[in-house]
Amino acid sequence: MATFDIPTEQWAQVVEKTGGPSVYKKIPVQKPGPDEVLINVKYSGVCHTDLHAMMGDWPLDTKMPFVGGHEGAGVVVAKGELVKDIELGDHAGIKWLNGSCLACSFCMQADEPLCPHALLSGYTVDGSFQEYAIAKAAHVAHIPKGVELDAVAPVLCAGITVYKGLKESGARPGQWVAIVGAGGGLGSMALQYARAMGLNTIAIDGGEEKAASCKNLGASAYVDFMTTKDLVAEVKAATPEGLGPHAVILLAVQEKPFQQATEYVRSRGTVICIGLPAKAYLKAPVFDTVVRMITIKGSYVGNRQDTQEALDFFARGVVNVPFKTVGLSELGSVFDMMKDGKIVGRYVVDTSK
Amino acid sequence: MATFDIPTEQWAQVVEKTGGPSVYKKIPVQKPGPDEVLINVKYSGVCHTDLHAMMGDWPLDTKMPFVGGHEGAGVVVAKGELVKDIELGDHAGIKWLNGSCLACSFCMQADEPLCPHALLSGYTVDGSFQEYAIAKAAHVAHIPKGVELDAVAPVLCAGITVYKGLKESGARPGQWVAIVGAGGGLGSMALQYARAMGLNTIAIDGGEEKAASCKNLGASAYVDFMTTKDLVAEVKAATPEGLGPHAVILLAVQEKPFQQATEYVRSRGTVICIGLPAKAYLKAPVFDTVVRMITIKGSYVGNRQDTQEALDFFARGVVNVPFKTVGLSELGSVFDMMKDGKIVGRYVVDTSK
Amino acid sequence: MATFDIPTEQWAQVVEKTGGPSVYKKIPVQKPGPDEVLINVKYSGVCHTDLHAMMGDWPLDTKMPFVGGHEGAGVVVAKGELVKDIELGDHAGIKWLNGSCLACSFCMQADEPLCPHALLSGYTVDGSFQEYAIAKAAHVAHIPKGVELDAVAPVLCAGITVYKGLKESGARPGQWVAIVGAGGGLGSMALQYARAMGLNTIAIDGGEEKAASCKNLGASAYVDFMTTKDLVAEVKAATPEGLGPHAVILLAVQEKPFQQATEYVRSRGTVICIGLPAKAYLKAPVFDTVVRMITIKGSYVGNRQDTQEALDFFARGVVNVPFKTVGLSELGSVFDMMKDGKIVGRYVVDTSK
Amino acid sequence: MATFDIPTEQWAQVVEKTGGPSVYKKIPVQKPGPDEVLINVKYSGVCHTDLHAMMGDWPLDTKMPFVGGHEGAGVVVAKGELVKDIELGDHAGIKWLNGSCLACSFCMQADEPLCPHALLSGYTVDGSFQEYAIAKAAHVAHIPKGVELDAVAPVLCAGITVYKGLKESGARPGQWVAIVGAGGGLGSMALQYARAMGLNTIAIDGGEEKAASCKNLGASAYVDFMTTKDLVAEVKAATPEGLGPHAVILLAVQEKPFQQATEYVRSRGTVICIGLPAKAYLKAPVFDTVVRMITIKGSYVGNRQDTQEALDFFARGVVNVPFKTVGLSELGSVFDMMKDGKIVGRYVVDTSK
Repeated sequence: MATFDIPTEQWAQVVEKTGGPSVYKKIPVQKPGPDEVLINVKYSGVCHTDLHAMMGDWPLDTKMPFVGGHEGAGVVVAKGELVKDIELGDHAGIKWLNGSCLACSFCMQADEPLCPHALLSGYTVDGSFQEYAIAKAAHVAHIPKGVELDAVAPVLCAGITVYKGLKESGARPGQWVAIVGAGGGLGSMALQYARAMGLNTIAIDGGEEKAASCKNLGASAYVDFMTTKDLVAEVKAATPEGLGPHAVILLAVQEKPFQQATEYVRSRGTVICIGLPAKAYLKAPVFDTVVRMITIKGSYVGNRQDTQEALDFFARGVVNVPFKTVGLSELGSVFDMMKDGKIVGRYVVDTSK
Repeated sequence: MATFDIPTEQWAQVVEKTGGPSVYKKIPVQKPGPDEVLINVKYSGVCHTDLHAMMGDWPLDTKMPFVGGHEGAGVVVAKGELVKDIELGDHAGIKWLNGSCLACSFCMQADEPLCPHALLSGYTVDGSFQEYAIAKAAHVAHIPKGVELDAVAPVLCAGITVYKGLKESGARPGQWVAIVGAGGGLGSMALQYARAMGLNTIAIDGGEEKAASCKNLGASAYVDFMTTKDLVAEVKAATPEGLGPHAVILLAVQEKPFQQATEYVRSRGTVICIGLPAKAYLKAPVFDTVVRMITIKGSYVGNRQDTQEALDFFARGVVNVPFKTVGLSELGSVFDMMKDGKIVGRYVVDTSK
Repeated sequence: MATFDIPTEQWAQVVEKTGGPSVYKKIPVQKPGPDEVLINVKYSGVCHTDLHAMMGDWPLDTKMPFVGGHEGAGVVVAKGELVKDIELGDHAGIKWLNGSCLACSFCMQADEPLCPHALLSGYTVDGSFQEYAIAKAAHVAHIPKGVELDAVAPVLCAGITVYKGLKESGARPGQWVAIVGAGGGLGSMALQYARAMGLNTIAIDGGEEKAASCKNLGASAYVDFMTTKDLVAEVKAATPEGLGPHAVILLAVQEKPFQQATEYVRSRGTVICIGLPAKAYLKAPVFDTVVRMITIKGSYVGNRQDTQEALDFFARGVVNVPFKTVGLSELGSVFDMMKDGKIVGRYVVDTSK
Repeated sequence: MATFDIPTEQWAQVVEKTGGPSVYKKIPVQKPGPDEVLINVKYSGVCHTDLHAMMGDWPLDTKMPFVGGHEGAGVVVAKGELVKDIELGDHAGIKWLNGSCLACSFCMQADEPLCPHALLSGYTVDGSFQEYAIAKAAHVAHIPKGVELDAVAPVLCAGITVYKGLKESGARPGQWVAIVGAGGGLGSMALQYARAMGLNTIAIDGGEEKAASCKNLGASAYVDFMTTKDLVAEVKAATPEGLGPHAVILLAVQEKPFQQATEYVRSRGTVICIGLPAKAYLKAPVFDTVVRMITIKGSYVGNRQDTQEALDFFARGVVNVPFKTVGLSELGSVFDMMKDGKIVGRYVVDTSK
């Protein structure tokens, strides 16, 4: 069995008060409890949620001070006495769901994300913006050897989430799915997962650059919400018999698409909500929803099985996520770009720098 | 094989102009086409939809003039050359769905109610407010001998609809379902179907009289929306662990419950919309819908299989529908009571009077 | 919080060599690990599996020496530091599945019974034939206060198993299920669970006494395999249209019914295998299985969610299991009756005697 | 609307007595009934079933004399008065299921292949080995314009059947499926459908030539039953964690694989039987089936929705079926090759020659 020299101190990004900033400093390395592992995080993706956590603009409180980050990929370097299904030296990922009770009525049914005792990485427990992070062993993502740890980091949140949404939609291979916000980070992964799952996709987004990238990722059609004269008609026209797509995946961060999707989804079809525009409401006429038998469904993050499946697609090379790497010490500048809306693709921080 | 003397003329209730009235008069008896049957309607239930049809206050046009009615129970007295699965003398029911193409992509998947070529009894084709009515043979309800034709009439629309909604909810025996509008006609059937399906119910309605009748029909709890201080809290408190019901069946004809049900449904639960309050909208916060993974789903009328299943429960005696019988000639007075909101239970017309 | 005086020694039934006997003696009380609870077992059901374990006549080795028993109902008196979802003083049950890893690909999908690291009570770990037994906290059954601990004991294995089989069958309320071996211990529970789930049942067993008890427990029909001239025809005749039952639950301990059920199950129906006749084989003609689209499916014990659901039916009073109580010290005489095939109903041992 | 000159006589292959031969001769052209279409068959695939029909070696009687063939692709040239969903000039396919009642309890649930009144092309009604064939309009396959009629013919039976089997398996994108008989005609289509559905495949067959073709069609692994030392171990080793494939598709025409598949399928996995080896039996140990919770399931031909889905994959170009074309007059020589086991790939007859 592998053994590891574990330092007592490490570099980390620590948010010490609501509103930030995140401070790059040395803090102690923790020891794993009986059912936990210690992971030497090599790379961590940076997600908008990390910015929300620092700014404190969500209804749920963070711990304080806290270390952010929930897309951490690294190596297991220590584990508690009860841990059996993972070994020192294994590659593992820290996800948004750091742990759950595994015993409540949601956990019993493999709906760990709904566990009332869930621990959230980089939010209610310290996350992956440090060199050594703790996670519940039963919850870490198992990353196959051979998968690049920097490339896989963004899959640990964004990839799992869109894959879960596609599963929840119930769309079967050969059916049609509209992806709203297809040109963004989540959207580009959704297009690739959908293709790998045998689905036909209609990409909805704005601008010609995004049209090109969506087509390139396998979209059968692209509808430009900025230039179309009738989005609903155009989406329906892109599907067989003009009946509309079997499912819609809402990744948008504006409210309007959440109120429009039921108009073009196929009768008996499903609208999946994933994006979280601030203070937004779903709205749909009761009459149409009933007589067309439409389903509207929220999809949160994946459970552990979804995680392994999403990673398996990535490991087989059918999903590719463009990213840029900077040192952990430069996290603040990534947050600055995020605030200014200047991020294209995903950023990954290297904890050794 | 049975043979029948079929008259050339019959008594019927005919709406000759939008807004009514419905005129009791003699009209010719039609002959069935190759794939049709002629049914000697003995009894027909009267539904609010019949009033809507006469008043012309729905967006969809009726044929004109037309014979209303879509809960007709009677005897097959003639059939076309292609009809094989039903015999003269069999008891049969005319439903809202008089016929469908049986060949489109919805019919192929047993979603006949979504067929774009659907024929609607008492709306786009003549219905059951006459002594002899035509229906597509493949669509008539098969009513077992021994079932009373007057008692079964209201099951042919109301019963099937609530049964379908309970099926669509995905609730399994032993789980909890809230029925909104449990004290009304549909509600009382929903409570009984739910009980027969092994479900636990929370009845939601207003007033002490309805409380008593709901408890009597097997409701485990009753929440009075007129007197409760906190409906959401009270509904949740009635369920195990206070997590809320697994499903909600919305039979209400006001908008508010459609916007409230997502607050008390269990995480991962399903809200089924059946009632059709005029111009109402579904509305739910995106954030909660996503992180609690809630499903909102429209349920229209049942398909043919749902019909046979709903009838089978009735035939086994586990569902009981109180009704009053009047002659077909008195239909106008039933409509008058409806307009005044004075109907309690279902009215059934006897076509022989 | 409740506190308990826990002795250092206790009475137990210990099998010290393959073939038995089970010896009633004093042994030390164990201490729970971080993720375990210590349960003061009040009552334990006695199952044929306990006899198999003692006799060593199954392919899987037991620990040795070992304490048998896997239907133990009692009170939580101590717990490890990680245990959060259960409190001292709570009522809890020890099931066949004492623990599992909660992290493998089966556990992740709520198929804990298939976990390769599963711990089996009274087989690979000490079970409930002692006053104080250890179990993994995440796996103990949560028994509501108010439920009698002696009466509930047999539900913890037999009840869960038949309930799981009915769930796995996919039969929906209103459909028909044949129960093979309906007159036995498992069968009588299966009839009651089926009734509570809204299913219609055909009981198959031998003799008039069993006919009476099956009818009494709600069976719609009884087919006597000892006297029928044509079992297949008779089962089919008992169902609507003579199409056969939608599902068959095989609780028999002979091989023949396992090879006969596909003959009378409805096309598209499901045959569920639960009973484990020694060295028996399933056998069915390929041609019929294919063109009638029949499903044959094995169902093992329930998972944790099934457990809670099965207990909930019991707690609501819709399932009743006749049992006799003797002291733990008399376990040997129960085994003797079992060997002689003289057991009727379930035996429960009282650990205080 | 297109109009067509329909001759009164046509060339056909007619079997006039059990055992054959099939005689190439002129017979009258039939007129469609009210719910039927007349199809000018351009090409028809030749299937082993056609040989069985001629030889009379199946338990079910054919009509006599009869015209064989059930993979006919052509043009609609006449239709009955009730036919609405298809137009003259449309391309349509004749399948094994020529018609069904559309009203029985199986048809109501979209299980038309189980209809007790099913009409079978080239068996109980005349089939596609003639220039003009009759079919029930609701049952013909709708073939998109632009799809080659010769190439699509074999999809109408073989393609639909393997696609249906893959659907019935419940295997989800990313999971593993073993295809037994992967190197044959059905097998090569199954590999392609599986790939298009996002499934990973393990091809099982014999010989190096088949290894090459299976790998070429996307199989992730090939297991040679003729040379392997331990087929069960090798199949399992080809899957993640060695747990075995999630599903097995049995296309073999020997009995042994039907009795072996349960040994290597994953616990909780599904074995789908499609192949029909003469007088073969499924056989599996009860104990393993139960404790590993294995499902064995027969899958017959697809329903109408399956048909349209299978055709859609073909139309999108993701499935390719090698075939050779000969004149309808040469059908006898194709049967001779079949008898001698000399057929590689599918033969298609051109009805104009």
